[in-house]
Amino acid sequence: MPDPIGYRRWAIAEGRLHAVANESACILNASDDDAHVALTVYFTDREPAGPYGVTVPARRTLHLRYEDLEDPESIPVGTDYASVIESDVPVVVQYSRIDGPEHDSPVASTIAYAGD
Amino acid sequence: MPDPIGYRRWAIAEGRLHAVANESACILNASDDDAHVALTVYFTDREPAGPYGVTVPARRTLHLRYEDLEDPESIPVGTDYASVIESDVPVVVQYSRIDGPEHDSPVASTIAYAGD
Amino acid sequence: MPDPIGYRRWAIAEGRLHAVANESACILNASDDDAHVALTVYFTDREPAGPYGVTVPARRTLHLRYEDLEDPESIPVGTDYASVIESDVPVVVQYSRIDGPEHDSPVASTIAYAGD
Amino acid sequence: MPDPIGYRRWAIAEGRLHAVANESACILNASDDDAHVALTVYFTDREPAGPYGVTVPARRTLHLRYEDLEDPESIPVGTDYASVIESDVPVVVQYSRIDGPEHDSPVASTIAYAGD
Repeated sequence: MPDPIGYRRWAIAEGRLHAVANESACILNASDDDAHVALTVYFTDREPAGPYGVTVPARRTLHLRYEDLEDPESIPVGTDYASVIESDVPVVVQYSRIDGPEHDSPVASTIAYAGD
Repeated sequence: MPDPIGYRRWAIAEGRLHAVANESACILNASDDDAHVALTVYFTDREPAGPYGVTVPARRTLHLRYEDLEDPESIPVGTDYASVIESDVPVVVQYSRIDGPEHDSPVASTIAYAGD
Repeated sequence: MPDPIGYRRWAIAEGRLHAVANESACILNASDDDAHVALTVYFTDREPAGPYGVTVPARRTLHLRYEDLEDPESIPVGTDYASVIESDVPVVVQYSRIDGPEHDSPVASTIAYAGD
Repeated sequence: MPDPIGYRRWAIAEGRLHAVANESACILNASDDDAHVALTVYFTDREPAGPYGVTVPARRTLHLRYEDLEDPESIPVGTDYASVIESDVPVVVQYSRIDGPEHDSPVASTIAYAGD
């Protein structure tokens, strides 16, 4: 039985919400344990927001939309940000930018940075 | 003679099929042995599908379209998914999103996550 | 207390400024120390430009636009370039291409290459 | 003096030329030695093409367009391919897809896979 694929710490250095666009942190938990994930959001000119807590169940994926973040605070539209994702079990994280009035057309995607 | 380039296990954390868009897992097998590949697809709210089996011959590339997966089941349109690719010889995997009525215009691409 | 996430040296192999498009090196400094960053720009047929110096404060992100570089020289429009980013504390670097008259619609994004 | 940034072997698992689109392997040689690069192109149903030889001078970048490859043979339009890039000095490789009648609007980009 190999170890579950992934890392426990990831970073996405880009982010900027728009009225007709959104971004997602796509998180895959291929392990057999629920992943308790903490997301921290960094800005240009203020202290970081978060951590935002989310659970990705065992053997599930979650496409976390940044515009849906509310607690402890929302991310303002038109502001540069970046994020760090920490999990208690290995996960895989990909960043996806989605454009269009219906937020339904991905236009950019990249694997995040996996760092110990 | 160096080892063939690549890894035996890869993950793509993003995926969502559309009526006028598709996604591919582009697999390169630069080795001199056929690669027997198993693809597992993860969802948000149900158990994973697969494994889907595919062979990438020695010194060949295969652009595997997710909409073509049929056995053991098809991937529904409009559903978030993610995938893990396992191979018995080293391969290289890249994720590509293709838009347009003819599925002929790639708009997003990223190397997948290579993880032991 | 884990080490701050990231690397001290990164490379972006692509770059080309347009009249109605731009590129950014998105830099995340999730550490508790200011990052002193040196950017060097490589061209096809001349010696490199730079280094360009920039500070990314502790716990901040900076989306550095290549068209804003001025000292020691500007990057000409329509010229292929590439860049190396060096920092005295670990950072994470992502490359983003932004199109449109208002430079407001990202169309391509990739994590940069982290190399010791 | 640190070692030059990069790897000696890279892979790009995606590729497909179009009449109004192109792809580039963007190669950065940040070292102080010329890089002698060999590119091999893999297909779905025939033996690989190449190697294609190209030199990237010391402290230079080269955006190599696949449609410009001629010797030993051209890459046909509308055919899936993948490529492996080998260099005698460390380089950094990024894949870029360029759309539009003038081949002037990048729409997808990803760092290549660096593999020993």
